[in-house]
Amino acid sequence: MIDNGAADSQTRRRRRRSDGERSREAILHESARLATVEGIEGLSLARLADAVGMSKSGLFAHFRSKEELQLATIDTASSIFTDVVISPARAASPGVRRLTAYAERFLAHVRDSVFPGGCFFASVATELDTHPGPVRDRAMAIVNGWVALLEAEVVAAQEAGEIDPSLDTAQLAFELDSYLFLANTQFVVSGDRLALERAQRAVESRLAAAGAEASRD
Amino acid sequence: MIDNGAADSQTRRRRRRSDGERSREAILHESARLATVEGIEGLSLARLADAVGMSKSGLFAHFRSKEELQLATIDTASSIFTDVVISPARAASPGVRRLTAYAERFLAHVRDSVFPGGCFFASVATELDTHPGPVRDRAMAIVNGWVALLEAEVVAAQEAGEIDPSLDTAQLAFELDSYLFLANTQFVVSGDRLALERAQRAVESRLAAAGAEASRD
Repeated sequence: MIDNGAADSQTRRRRRRSDGERSREAILHESARLATVEGIEGLSLARLADAVGMSKSGLFAHFRSKEELQLATIDTASSIFTDVVISPARAASPGVRRLTAYAERFLAHVRDSVFPGGCFFASVATELDTHPGPVRDRAMAIVNGWVALLEAEVVAAQEAGEIDPSLDTAQLAFELDSYLFLANTQFVVSGDRLALERAQRAVESRLAAAGAEASRD
Repeated sequence: MIDNGAADSQTRRRRRRSDGERSREAILHESARLATVEGIEGLSLARLADAVGMSKSGLFAHFRSKEELQLATIDTASSIFTDVVISPARAASPGVRRLTAYAERFLAHVRDSVFPGGCFFASVATELDTHPGPVRDRAMAIVNGWVALLEAEVVAAQEAGEIDPSLDTAQLAFELDSYLFLANTQFVVSGDRLALERAQRAVESRLAAAGAEASRD
């Protein structure tokens, strides 16, 4: 009985821990979605508790401060972005095909409203641009990681002889990223897919132009 | 004496009105600057009164509601944008030169922190993208006016034979605008002028490529 009781209690503890993990994950998913609409600074524990059907004190058991919640929200948004944009695109072969896939997956995640306010990181970066601090730093590290990913793929395209090897790789990554960034904002405001189509066309024609320069060499 | 008294009183009334106009203008300039840092929804009459050295009730004499203040702030920001970006660029001849001038003036107003949070309309559009209402509508009308201005100039460049006449004018305007939009955000976050230089280079090389296509025809 004592042994059984101890085992039961261990099972209960395990279940509790795993319920806790599940609800932490559910809170952070909701928080990442809310942050793209209300702003990450506008996140309120009260509203979030309401959205996930918990008491405010239940939420406080998971996050000791608003900043802890904000940082954890950014990490969750980053995992979601990796799952729906980066990982699927990495199935494409390196270089121009993967760059095109990054654009396609990025625009698809905006179109599909993975986050209701469009790209989480575009939303948070434009919100926090004038608000320095650890939350902005964490978000900007992820934005910079995305830009570095694009630039690495431009380098891969050069190494594969797909695009002009003399092109400034950071410049080309900037141009490709800019199409995605504007399309995201325009789509969130208007709901018009034309913005997404324009960005896809811009990425493809920019890469084609860079390729034409390579083949002229 | 009566006549003099009446004249004095009229002068006083005029002076009062003109003081009122001046302080209204001063309030709206400060409000436009603050909105790019705190957000246009984050504008508080208390903070604004503090920033312009007025009492909150003095401020209420000018604006009956927060929405009235927000709409008037957008109109003031639009006047400032016209004065520092659009009007000077219109001195350039139509077509490619004026498009380049629009880009230069836009990037200069970001570099010079005319608004501390960069382009007022980029700031407000990204803030309000998920918040429909009259304030967003007024801001978006000005954003759309800017895009229409760029597209009209692309058409002028085509008519002047400077760029490929078969190009999709809205597509090219989208691409040019995207460079400016991303550069604005990157500069506000980092303070690094490289972003502004990249955008200028992107605009010029995109127009040169469109011009090369024209000369191949």
